[in-house]
Amino acid sequence: MNEPGHGTRRLKLIITYDGLPWMGWQSLPGGRTVQDQLELGLRTIAGAPVRIHASGRTDTGVHALGQVAHCDLPDSSRLTAEEWPNALNAVLPPSIRIVTADFAPPDFHSRFDAKGKIYRYRIWRAHVMSPFEAGRAWHVFGQLDESTLKQCAAILTGTHNFSRLSANRGDMSEQERRKTPEDVTRTLVRADVRSRDRLLELEFEGDGFLYKMVRLMVGTMVHVARGRDSVEWFSSLLDDPAGTKSHHMAPPDGLYLVRVLY
Amino acid sequence: MNEPGHGTRRLKLIITYDGLPWMGWQSLPGGRTVQDQLELGLRTIAGAPVRIHASGRTDTGVHALGQVAHCDLPDSSRLTAEEWPNALNAVLPPSIRIVTADFAPPDFHSRFDAKGKIYRYRIWRAHVMSPFEAGRAWHVFGQLDESTLKQCAAILTGTHNFSRLSANRGDMSEQERRKTPEDVTRTLVRADVRSRDRLLELEFEGDGFLYKMVRLMVGTMVHVARGRDSVEWFSSLLDDPAGTKSHHMAPPDGLYLVRVLY
Repeated sequence: MNEPGHGTRRLKLIITYDGLPWMGWQSLPGGRTVQDQLELGLRTIAGAPVRIHASGRTDTGVHALGQVAHCDLPDSSRLTAEEWPNALNAVLPPSIRIVTADFAPPDFHSRFDAKGKIYRYRIWRAHVMSPFEAGRAWHVFGQLDESTLKQCAAILTGTHNFSRLSANRGDMSEQERRKTPEDVTRTLVRADVRSRDRLLELEFEGDGFLYKMVRLMVGTMVHVARGRDSVEWFSSLLDDPAGTKSHHMAPPDGLYLVRVLY
Repeated sequence: MNEPGHGTRRLKLIITYDGLPWMGWQSLPGGRTVQDQLELGLRTIAGAPVRIHASGRTDTGVHALGQVAHCDLPDSSRLTAEEWPNALNAVLPPSIRIVTADFAPPDFHSRFDAKGKIYRYRIWRAHVMSPFEAGRAWHVFGQLDESTLKQCAAILTGTHNFSRLSANRGDMSEQERRKTPEDVTRTLVRADVRSRDRLLELEFEGDGFLYKMVRLMVGTMVHVARGRDSVEWFSSLLDDPAGTKSHHMAPPDGLYLVRVLY
């Protein structure tokens, strides 16, 4: 891997991808991940191995409109920042596109410097799923009370302990989790519910999101808006963080990382 | 095949499909067509071979929001019209969906009874192609004068000889074509150009469309709107039908059969 040094330049990329064909962001044996595809492309263009770091992982099937990642280019790289998107897009699969590239200060870090994120979740409301929305929205037909969704969104807004609306990472043992208790307080500055035509969109802006938090928020909101549990119960998930975690998880299909805020 | 007879019912289907995975509508050896998939589904549900007839063929990669087709169900079929969409959608691939089903009079014919059609063509205008538009829009970046597109659209509207904006069918020899000269006069009642955000949409409503006519209209309009030929030349394609056919054909990716009018 390429260590920062004299002449090394840090490249900041804004990336959009359709998550459907990929096993998430994070590199895996077999290479069917967004990170692997990008590192393959970077190696092809830069002529040397390049490690890329994202603002955060996205799970299998989750999409990005504006994922941010950085990497250090080898000294030998001669492309200008403006040339990088076209060069990478020429070798990347069409489901992964570089939107912009800029040289960043050598201490810029896509994850540690992120001040917040915006996520969007798309729900398709027609009786029949659109073939153009397969893998790109959650198909929820039937009862779904929009004013209940808005009540839940209002409850989520603010600073709360989101422990019951998050999942335990599969890559940490119970023992490890107890040794290093994670900070589970997050601030949502905005939770919007809007519908246009047969599409219902939920959008969340926050200073950070716990593991699977957006999918659990959306899945649990939908559970309540279908009338299967009360708004009071929803509220208690935040007020009484010691209780059982919600297991009402929306599928990855509808989830989009819209923007990373710095 | 099932011949209409006592107790036979004609079913009229409205179908939407993503054309990307399919080699067009029309049945082909190998079965990778929309018609083959639908006939496979119909046979599974009806328990007997069923032939389906569409309002018209769509080419490889062309999409439909509202294709119309009819078929005759075997006497043994007991499903109500309302039950057919769910039954078929359960066995069809997600890229093909039945929107509605209705019993039609026994003399209804999806092709011969069609009074007109509406087609839409989507053009993606951003510098970088969206991964969510791959196969679903034509990526045209750079110069493209919208007022020129509107001028061309106005020229197309009305009754014209569209011969130079159509292609010869590959399945007819030159000799056959001379023996049975096709009627190449069509009426476009509407040709709209509208843009929203990074998407440019062209929509055409007409009493009928010649082979590859929409893709040739769009490709030739874009050719002119890029400044590569004049609006006067465009006009001459209709006024002087004996000249060379246009070969500026837009890709199938952006083309959608929106609705069939009866």
